[in-house]
Amino acid sequence: MAKPIYILNGPNLNLLGTREPEIYGSQTLDDIAKLSETHAQSLGLSTAFHQSNAEGQLIDWIHQARNDGAGIILNAGAYTHTSIAIADALSAAELPVIELHLSNVFAREPFRHHSYIAPVANGVICGFGATGYRLALSAMSDILNPQSSS
Amino acid sequence: MAKPIYILNGPNLNLLGTREPEIYGSQTLDDIAKLSETHAQSLGLSTAFHQSNAEGQLIDWIHQARNDGAGIILNAGAYTHTSIAIADALSAAELPVIELHLSNVFAREPFRHHSYIAPVANGVICGFGATGYRLALSAMSDILNPQSSS
Amino acid sequence: MAKPIYILNGPNLNLLGTREPEIYGSQTLDDIAKLSETHAQSLGLSTAFHQSNAEGQLIDWIHQARNDGAGIILNAGAYTHTSIAIADALSAAELPVIELHLSNVFAREPFRHHSYIAPVANGVICGFGATGYRLALSAMSDILNPQSSS
Amino acid sequence: MAKPIYILNGPNLNLLGTREPEIYGSQTLDDIAKLSETHAQSLGLSTAFHQSNAEGQLIDWIHQARNDGAGIILNAGAYTHTSIAIADALSAAELPVIELHLSNVFAREPFRHHSYIAPVANGVICGFGATGYRLALSAMSDILNPQSSS
Amino acid sequence: MAKPIYILNGPNLNLLGTREPEIYGSQTLDDIAKLSETHAQSLGLSTAFHQSNAEGQLIDWIHQARNDGAGIILNAGAYTHTSIAIADALSAAELPVIELHLSNVFAREPFRHHSYIAPVANGVICGFGATGYRLALSAMSDILNPQSSS
Amino acid sequence: MAKPIYILNGPNLNLLGTREPEIYGSQTLDDIAKLSETHAQSLGLSTAFHQSNAEGQLIDWIHQARNDGAGIILNAGAYTHTSIAIADALSAAELPVIELHLSNVFAREPFRHHSYIAPVANGVICGFGATGYRLALSAMSDILNPQSSS
Amino acid sequence: MAKPIYILNGPNLNLLGTREPEIYGSQTLDDIAKLSETHAQSLGLSTAFHQSNAEGQLIDWIHQARNDGAGIILNAGAYTHTSIAIADALSAAELPVIELHLSNVFAREPFRHHSYIAPVANGVICGFGATGYRLALSAMSDILNPQSSS
Amino acid sequence: MAKPIYILNGPNLNLLGTREPEIYGSQTLDDIAKLSETHAQSLGLSTAFHQSNAEGQLIDWIHQARNDGAGIILNAGAYTHTSIAIADALSAAELPVIELHLSNVFAREPFRHHSYIAPVANGVICGFGATGYRLALSAMSDILNPQSSS
Amino acid sequence: MAKPIYILNGPNLNLLGTREPEIYGSQTLDDIAKLSETHAQSLGLSTAFHQSNAEGQLIDWIHQARNDGAGIILNAGAYTHTSIAIADALSAAELPVIELHLSNVFAREPFRHHSYIAPVANGVICGFGATGYRLALSAMSDILNPQSSS
Amino acid sequence: MAKPIYILNGPNLNLLGTREPEIYGSQTLDDIAKLSETHAQSLGLSTAFHQSNAEGQLIDWIHQARNDGAGIILNAGAYTHTSIAIADALSAAELPVIELHLSNVFAREPFRHHSYIAPVANGVICGFGATGYRLALSAMSDILNPQSSS
Amino acid sequence: MAKPIYILNGPNLNLLGTREPEIYGSQTLDDIAKLSETHAQSLGLSTAFHQSNAEGQLIDWIHQARNDGAGIILNAGAYTHTSIAIADALSAAELPVIELHLSNVFAREPFRHHSYIAPVANGVICGFGATGYRLALSAMSDILNPQSSS
Amino acid sequence: MAKPIYILNGPNLNLLGTREPEIYGSQTLDDIAKLSETHAQSLGLSTAFHQSNAEGQLIDWIHQARNDGAGIILNAGAYTHTSIAIADALSAAELPVIELHLSNVFAREPFRHHSYIAPVANGVICGFGATGYRLALSAMSDILNPQSSS
Repeated sequence: MAKPIYILNGPNLNLLGTREPEIYGSQTLDDIAKLSETHAQSLGLSTAFHQSNAEGQLIDWIHQARNDGAGIILNAGAYTHTSIAIADALSAAELPVIELHLSNVFAREPFRHHSYIAPVANGVICGFGATGYRLALSAMSDILNPQSSS
Repeated sequence: MAKPIYILNGPNLNLLGTREPEIYGSQTLDDIAKLSETHAQSLGLSTAFHQSNAEGQLIDWIHQARNDGAGIILNAGAYTHTSIAIADALSAAELPVIELHLSNVFAREPFRHHSYIAPVANGVICGFGATGYRLALSAMSDILNPQSSS
Repeated sequence: MAKPIYILNGPNLNLLGTREPEIYGSQTLDDIAKLSETHAQSLGLSTAFHQSNAEGQLIDWIHQARNDGAGIILNAGAYTHTSIAIADALSAAELPVIELHLSNVFAREPFRHHSYIAPVANGVICGFGATGYRLALSAMSDILNPQSSS
Repeated sequence: MAKPIYILNGPNLNLLGTREPEIYGSQTLDDIAKLSETHAQSLGLSTAFHQSNAEGQLIDWIHQARNDGAGIILNAGAYTHTSIAIADALSAAELPVIELHLSNVFAREPFRHHSYIAPVANGVICGFGATGYRLALSAMSDILNPQSSS
Repeated sequence: MAKPIYILNGPNLNLLGTREPEIYGSQTLDDIAKLSETHAQSLGLSTAFHQSNAEGQLIDWIHQARNDGAGIILNAGAYTHTSIAIADALSAAELPVIELHLSNVFAREPFRHHSYIAPVANGVICGFGATGYRLALSAMSDILNPQSSS
Repeated sequence: MAKPIYILNGPNLNLLGTREPEIYGSQTLDDIAKLSETHAQSLGLSTAFHQSNAEGQLIDWIHQARNDGAGIILNAGAYTHTSIAIADALSAAELPVIELHLSNVFAREPFRHHSYIAPVANGVICGFGATGYRLALSAMSDILNPQSSS
Repeated sequence: MAKPIYILNGPNLNLLGTREPEIYGSQTLDDIAKLSETHAQSLGLSTAFHQSNAEGQLIDWIHQARNDGAGIILNAGAYTHTSIAIADALSAAELPVIELHLSNVFAREPFRHHSYIAPVANGVICGFGATGYRLALSAMSDILNPQSSS
Repeated sequence: MAKPIYILNGPNLNLLGTREPEIYGSQTLDDIAKLSETHAQSLGLSTAFHQSNAEGQLIDWIHQARNDGAGIILNAGAYTHTSIAIADALSAAELPVIELHLSNVFAREPFRHHSYIAPVANGVICGFGATGYRLALSAMSDILNPQSSS
Repeated sequence: MAKPIYILNGPNLNLLGTREPEIYGSQTLDDIAKLSETHAQSLGLSTAFHQSNAEGQLIDWIHQARNDGAGIILNAGAYTHTSIAIADALSAAELPVIELHLSNVFAREPFRHHSYIAPVANGVICGFGATGYRLALSAMSDILNPQSSS
Repeated sequence: MAKPIYILNGPNLNLLGTREPEIYGSQTLDDIAKLSETHAQSLGLSTAFHQSNAEGQLIDWIHQARNDGAGIILNAGAYTHTSIAIADALSAAELPVIELHLSNVFAREPFRHHSYIAPVANGVICGFGATGYRLALSAMSDILNPQSSS
Repeated sequence: MAKPIYILNGPNLNLLGTREPEIYGSQTLDDIAKLSETHAQSLGLSTAFHQSNAEGQLIDWIHQARNDGAGIILNAGAYTHTSIAIADALSAAELPVIELHLSNVFAREPFRHHSYIAPVANGVICGFGATGYRLALSAMSDILNPQSSS
Repeated sequence: MAKPIYILNGPNLNLLGTREPEIYGSQTLDDIAKLSETHAQSLGLSTAFHQSNAEGQLIDWIHQARNDGAGIILNAGAYTHTSIAIADALSAAELPVIELHLSNVFAREPFRHHSYIAPVANGVICGFGATGYRLALSAMSDILNPQSSS
């Protein structure tokens, strides 16, 4: 599988590791990019890892993944709950999509319980911190190569 | 870690594998119990795997896990959306809890989008079929032994 | 048609006939079981008639009907309005299903106006007391042998 | 019982049989009028069978039934969900009323799940196609002659 | 008054005293059963004290109380908020009913503010811990022997 | 405990005993004041008993209790459902508070099911008529002297 | 003022006087038409009095009043709550409009509490039975000849 | 009828006539008190006319009317929409009650469309300015002496 | 295409041109009928142009169009927001349908923002006055002859 | 500008400074009255400073300000969220109005997020403690003398 | 009219023609830009045609159109349903605005039924595919040159 | 305090002064930037003043303020009501935040009454036009140097 898995990160995730490290851990988004690439390689995959605070930029990358990517793992941050445009882009991408969150969004404010993205995703993983990126890559590998399972 | 991970399965999951195999796959719940135990052992864990159609029975097992288990992976099926009693039991168990669903419940009817269990769980994994059980065990392992992550 | 029609009755229906006979009539659930069997035989059908106050038991019987029954007539009582699990079981049964109520639930409290079962049933009959069981068997006969209609 | 049962049919039911016969069957409303009269006679009843697309006309017939009819079987079509005026007319008629639908309205759009008519009816029958007319007449016979039951 | 007061306890209440004793006190449900019996005897009453995690079992006991009990004190736990079936059983019991909660449910999550049971109960007592059982027995005594009041 | 328990009564409660005595009993609010004082003394407590139809007056008394009272038993009548100001006053009083109603408000109109007071009270007692005042004093005694319980 | 006041009556009002006379009184709509004309003449006005069960007919009369009438008194019955089309017609009529109901609609079912007509009317009178027609004519006289008031 | 009709006016109505006279007319509340008394006398009635900005004072007057008045005409102003306590007082008064508003409240903000008072009133009159007081007295006269009507 | 386009107009549209011409323009519905026919002929189409204030009549014409028309352009006026029956008739017609409004209904009252018709129409045009009829005919021509586009 | 700015304070604000000083600061309402008068004088203004727990008293003061005041700064406390009557009084006052809160009400319970007063005020200031009174006076000064701004 | 019509296209519309051509047609956005310019010229108009996935860019273009454009045709895609900021920009532009959609959004998911843009637009056209751009230009021409209509 | 106060302005605020100057005044955003800097200096503060129509750019500036700023004054325009991402960024900034609006948003459309930002701000100021910027800087000064108050 030569095309990379796009791992896209939305608003405020660039602050990771520098904000409240005693809660969120000391791993930065760069650390997560690295552990994702390492785990991907162990699964025979590669990654294209991006972050932006701009909704339009995330849509542009999803369009790019549509041609150049094998699947999308999306931690859309707060746009998860407000962006129909990102959901439409994912829907048009016709690729496997996994929605990812560091925290358990269902244990937070009610407005974080609704996702426009989940209905157009294959599955959702949330609440496991940085480990979630590795789980998402494992799940993506299983979707792309279902016979490898069991 | 000598205590097993309780993997509890709710209503209708006993039908797995015999119902619409072209959709749900031909794996039965027994198959899943076996692959779960195998994967658990590879992580240095063991499992206690149960299924019941009765809400009260599931609560009883959660109470039992409270004393005898190291964590709970719960696929509560339809009780996910209606049972405050199961959520209270999980909350009282004071153990790591992972909510699990075979299908992507957020792409189904609106009444399956709300979970009483998610707010008292560490995290949620849904939409990856039987693979979800392996992902959940990996996540549980990471929660129980956070230092093993990198 | 050798397989019986499962006639399943939910919570509190065991009290029939002994409670407020001036309102509900003096017929007990046993009387209804008998008139149902008699009417079924006149239609060339047989019945398997059960009652339980437990949601899990009703699900177990629906699973049993899935293998051993020709159709399901379900008076789920109050579980009609709260049990997604029973609806899922019915949906998995892949049999004709008729939802039945003794009283006209739409003339009662608003929380009795919504049914999780109706969307997965072939049809609904309510408000005709014990007569409803005979109507439901006639309707079931018509569904199983549509050519008999005229 | 010399007075007839009024069987009233609301908007669009005149199209029956000519529209999508592979779905709705090839029976026209005239066919249903005939099978209703036949079944009524077997029960010792007679029928007055009408259809109109106009809400006011249906109300006029209900007023007429109030003086000249023994009971009302009403398939109000889409007016079921929007007409308080028809419900008021039924309420004033002081006759047994049965609400009838060809399809299982509860398995269709949410706006078809609410009925202004059901709270003022004796009972509801839906989802059994043309057979529903025969079931409704049987139920009406039972309401008018309750001793005949059992 | 020879018949006992049924004191029924719902899901998770079996954990009392062993869970977070610094919050809920060190009294177990057995302790509460004993203080209830003692207080009942001081009022000239006796008690039948039960607990179950199963909704169907609670309904069975309510049916039993209908024949063998003088009144029902029900701490239905989480079923308070979800079980129409228990409310129906209470309504059919035609006995005095007191709804009881250890905690002040109105100071907790919104989904605990609604009770299906309260509208069919004589009264509600909540927020006074184990003392609530004694208050409920005093209130029941007053309902059964209103002349004793002054 | 030298400071009295404030027993505060809201709008329309001055009519008690003179209005529909066959329903509400022939006890006036004065009678209730007397039985409350008597019961309080048997518990080693004293009472300060007031009634007003004015929201502002009730708030003034709650402020007074803040300095001069040991606890507050409040039957706020209809202000229960509309007064955030009374709830704020109770919250500022930093005293034990018991919400009390003569009738079972949950069996009445929906707008009486919500209470602004309950979330800032220790507990709620409703549906037991004048007996409720005695139960509330017993509960207050238990809150003030928890060791007296057994 | 040579043009008559249109007094328009909606669905089911033709039944007045013949239905439940012990409740609604023995006055028929004809009686009300006569007392309205008599009262109108005492105010120097005349009336055009109509009834129909059909929404379209009521709209036609409102259009007619627009050219030929001095004002509209409308008892729209159940169409009050469902007909935006009648409200639009009234709005286009550019005449004084009084909404009238025999019963106090606010003391009835919630769906009768909303009126599409009230926002386009000068005022509303309800709850006074046949007397309401005379009150409405007095109010209309006052609107048409405001100087006569004092 | 020796007892007077209580005409009670709520918050802000003391400003009448001095505020925006081009809109509300130049009549003060005193003027309205006088025209009400004059009109009452022509009907053989007398009036007790009061205004207060305080909810508690209005309740006190309603209680007074309960003993000393023949009926209550209440223009509760903004308390119409927020005071359950006033509605309870009216309900306890067991007198004819007419709800009155100068303006057509249904053509104003949505929060003015709901009235706690209307369900406990005999009828409602709104939108006719000062004329409404005379209409209300005529309606009250008709309620107290129904035989005078025709 | 020999069959005409049905252009159906609902309640109050007969008033066009005579009501507030400075706002709605001086064009009557007859003028619009003529400009529609002229524009249709320029597109090689013909029109059948009708108006009624009666919901039932509009349904009758839709049924007629089903056999005799090539498409339906419907300005249903206020019935747009309340008539499920018209929507059902359109759905049964199995013809191209265009929903049309003279005004921009989305800039008006909230109850005009919902349309039962739009989900069963090919498209919606609103806010362009009489020009909308010509745009609708152009769009209809394009739907009937898609190859003519571009 | 000889007329004073009315600074009106609603329920429970008399407790300021004596309640939880570590949170709300040790400033009493008297202290705030003084700092307000001092700041007003520096702006060439004077103040009339009042507090009451009674809704009616606050309305009376607003009426008084209408004749004797230059503007109103209102900290209505909990009445902000429930009093339409105060909003009506402010609207009738035809003076500049500033809504003021010590705390950031939007960060508290949802029922404190809605204000009946804000729509009839010129502006809102909240969350700045006692400083808010000085900011409100500065804003009032700017409204009364807009030319002084730069 | 020398200034061009701005035709602005929102998120994901750049994918047109390359995504699911069997559904959306094989026309790309470039094709639509060309047919729009051609049709505009036939109406004596010119176009400025843009697309962006970024909300801020669309606002910038609307600001630009405010000075340099004659009108705005906006296909805002998913931002239609979420962007108050775009609606504010349109409102500030003080130009004719037409809202456009390729698909009939009212026949899709409920969250696509609400538009922030429609209330500030002159009109809406949806459901006619690429033809909608030509219809919108015709409608814009009519708005800019109303005398040309007939 | 060497670090500047970030004053951030959202979508459409660049149009200030050039749009409807008779309403919004003739001050441009540049004028406001200058008066803000002047007022800040009088308080011993400095400002960093920015505007963008892009949500992502505003988030970037908030992240920048997190390192380089002493506080944030945010007029987020329409993003106030739709952007959870901006609220998350503010929350992560761990700086004092003041929400600011030129107009009284609570007197405008309902969708402008909800703010995602207010719950994470220290306070809110709205409705005072350009003066609000000076008030916000005064409030910020007081928050940063609380001892300077009184």
